[in-house]
Amino acid sequence: MSLENLNTRMLPAIEEELKRIVARLNEPHTHIFYEMLAYHMGWNGEGAGPEATGKRIRPLLVLLTFAASKNNSGKKKTKFESWTPALPAAACVELIHNFSLVHDDIQDGSDLRRGRLTVWKKWGMPQAVNAGDALFILAHMALLETKDSFPLEKTQQIGSIVNEACLALSSGQFMDISYEKRIDLVIEDYWPMISGKTAALLSACTQIGAVLSDADEAAQENYRSFGHYLGLAFQVQDDYLGIWGDSALTGKSNESDLVAGKKSLPVLYGLAKNGTFAQSWARGPILSDEAGPLSEQLAAEGAKLYTLEAADQMTDLALQSLRAAEPQGEAGEAIFELTRMLLGRKA
Amino acid sequence: MSLENLNTRMLPAIEEELKRIVARLNEPHTHIFYEMLAYHMGWNGEGAGPEATGKRIRPLLVLLTFAASKNNSGKKKTKFESWTPALPAAACVELIHNFSLVHDDIQDGSDLRRGRLTVWKKWGMPQAVNAGDALFILAHMALLETKDSFPLEKTQQIGSIVNEACLALSSGQFMDISYEKRIDLVIEDYWPMISGKTAALLSACTQIGAVLSDADEAAQENYRSFGHYLGLAFQVQDDYLGIWGDSALTGKSNESDLVAGKKSLPVLYGLAKNGTFAQSWARGPILSDEAGPLSEQLAAEGAKLYTLEAADQMTDLALQSLRAAEPQGEAGEAIFELTRMLLGRKA
Repeated sequence: MSLENLNTRMLPAIEEELKRIVARLNEPHTHIFYEMLAYHMGWNGEGAGPEATGKRIRPLLVLLTFAASKNNSGKKKTKFESWTPALPAAACVELIHNFSLVHDDIQDGSDLRRGRLTVWKKWGMPQAVNAGDALFILAHMALLETKDSFPLEKTQQIGSIVNEACLALSSGQFMDISYEKRIDLVIEDYWPMISGKTAALLSACTQIGAVLSDADEAAQENYRSFGHYLGLAFQVQDDYLGIWGDSALTGKSNESDLVAGKKSLPVLYGLAKNGTFAQSWARGPILSDEAGPLSEQLAAEGAKLYTLEAADQMTDLALQSLRAAEPQGEAGEAIFELTRMLLGRKA
Repeated sequence: MSLENLNTRMLPAIEEELKRIVARLNEPHTHIFYEMLAYHMGWNGEGAGPEATGKRIRPLLVLLTFAASKNNSGKKKTKFESWTPALPAAACVELIHNFSLVHDDIQDGSDLRRGRLTVWKKWGMPQAVNAGDALFILAHMALLETKDSFPLEKTQQIGSIVNEACLALSSGQFMDISYEKRIDLVIEDYWPMISGKTAALLSACTQIGAVLSDADEAAQENYRSFGHYLGLAFQVQDDYLGIWGDSALTGKSNESDLVAGKKSLPVLYGLAKNGTFAQSWARGPILSDEAGPLSEQLAAEGAKLYTLEAADQMTDLALQSLRAAEPQGEAGEAIFELTRMLLGRKA
C-alpha cells in the first residue's frame, strides 16, 4: 500500500526528470540521436509505454531511501516536496543503468529487450555504442545538478559513490564476458562478478539516498549494505528461476539459462561437482529438449537446494541491514514492500 | 625550445599520473581487463613505448594553459610545482580522448591504431566496448581528484565543462556515422560535426587550464576559443592532407580519404558543386588508382583553395584568441610553439 501510494507520485516525477535531462540531445543536428535514446528509454517508437520503460527500481530506491532516512523524516517538509531534491541523483542512476543495458545488448548480441528490438538491432552497432555513451554522459550531467539543492560536498560524495559503482559494474561485465570462454571457474568466481554486475549500482542507490539525507555514517553503511545484499539476493534468485522457474521449464516465454550457456550459480556448483551434469555440460551446447532433464540432474546433485539457501541467506542479510537502518514512515514501509516484491518473485 | 623544455618535464608526469589512475583496475579478478587498458594506453604488449602512447596533446594543453595563465604565473611557486595540481584534470581529458578512440575503432572497424592492433581486434568487440567504458569511468575518477588541490567549486566547474565537451563529442560522432549513408549533405553540415568530434575536447582542455588557474572570465573565454579554433584548424588541415598530402597522393603510408569515402570538407565542397567530381563520387567507391586524378579534378573545381583558405582562417582565429589570452612565460611561449607544430604540419 505504501509502495503503491508512493509509486503513484514518484514514478511520474522520475519519468519527467529523465525526459528533461535526455532532451538536452534534442537539437537540430542530433534529433535522430535523441530519438534513439528516447526509444530505448521506452518513450517513443513501437511498443513505447510503461511496459517498455522498465520498473525504475533504482531511482525509486534513491528516492525511498532519501525519504525514509531518519534524519530526513524529522524535517518539516510537505510530503510532496520531501524527495524532490533527490530527483537528479535518481535520474543519474537510472541513466547509468540504461547505459549499461544498451552496451550489454550489443555485447550479448541480444535482439530484444522488454519485447522490443534493441538499439543496435534498430540503428546498428556503431550508433548503439555511441547511444550508450551518451546515456552515460547525461547521467553525469544529472549528477552535477545535485548541487542546486545540496551543498557541493554532497555532489562530490555521490560522484565518488557513482564512480566506484560504475568501475565495479564494468569490472563485473569484464568477468561475465571472460567467463563465457573459461572452463576453470569455481564457485568463488561467482560473487565478485555479480557484486559488480548487479549489486554495485543497487548499493550505490541506497547509499546515495542516505548520504543526501544527511544520515550518519552507520546508517549510510546499513543502507549501502542493504542495497548490496538486495542485489546479490535478487541475482541468485534470478539464477534459480532461470533454471527451475516455470517459464524456464516450459520454455514458453524464456529459454532456460542452461540452453543459453549462462555460467550462473547453479551451473558453477554443478561444474565444481564434476559429476553427470558437468559431463553433459562439457559435451557442448544444451538443446531445448535437454534442459528439463538436465535441470533435474542438476537438482539431484544438490545445486537447487544450494542456490535456494544462498538466496535465502542473502535475503536475510538484506533485511537485517534494512532493519538496522531503521527506515521511517511511509517510505520506510515502501522499502520493505519493494524488497518483498523483488525477492519474493515467482517464476 | 620552451615546448621541448616543458615537454621533458610534463610528459613523464602525465604518464605517471595516467598509470596511477588506470592501476585502480589492476585487481586479482580484473588483471586482464587492466592489461587491455594498459595496452591501449601504449604501456604494454607488442609495440609498447613512446610511439604507441600518442603525443598527449590534450593533457599538455591543460598543463600549459594552467601554467601560462596570467593569474597563475604571478604566484610565487617553484617552477617544478607550478603545474602539478592540474595533473588529475590533465589525466581526465586524456582518458576521455582514449575512451573515444577505443569506441571509435570499434565503430569504424579499424584494425590498426598507431601501427598496433586495436583493442577490439585483440580482445573482441564486447570486451573493447567495456574497455572504452572503463577509460571513461577512470576519467571521472581523475576529475574528482581535482578536489585535493582546489576548492570544490573548481571540481564542479570543470566537471561541467567536461560533461558538455563529452556530449558534444558524442553528438559529433553521431553525425559522423550518420553522414556515411546520407547523400543530401551540404557544407554547413560539416562544422557542427567537427566542432563536436575534434574541437569540443580541445576547447575543454584550454578552458580547464584557465579555470583552474583562477583566470578571469574574459581570459577563460579567450583560452576556450583558442582551443576551439585550434581544433577546427587542425581538422580542416587534416582533411586537406588526407587528399593532397604527400602520403595521400603516393598512397605509401596512408590511403587517400577519397578511397576511404570520408565526407571531409573538400568532398562536401565538391559534392555541393555537383560537377565532374560529384558524378565520379556518385558512381560508387573510389579505387586507389583513381584517387590521384580525382584529387586533381577536385582541386580544379576549387576545393583545394577553399580548404586551404578555411584552414588559414581557423588558424588566424586560433592565434587571435591565444594572443588575447596573453599567455605568460615559458609555458606561454610553449603554447605558441605547440600551435605552430600542430597547424604547420607537412604531409
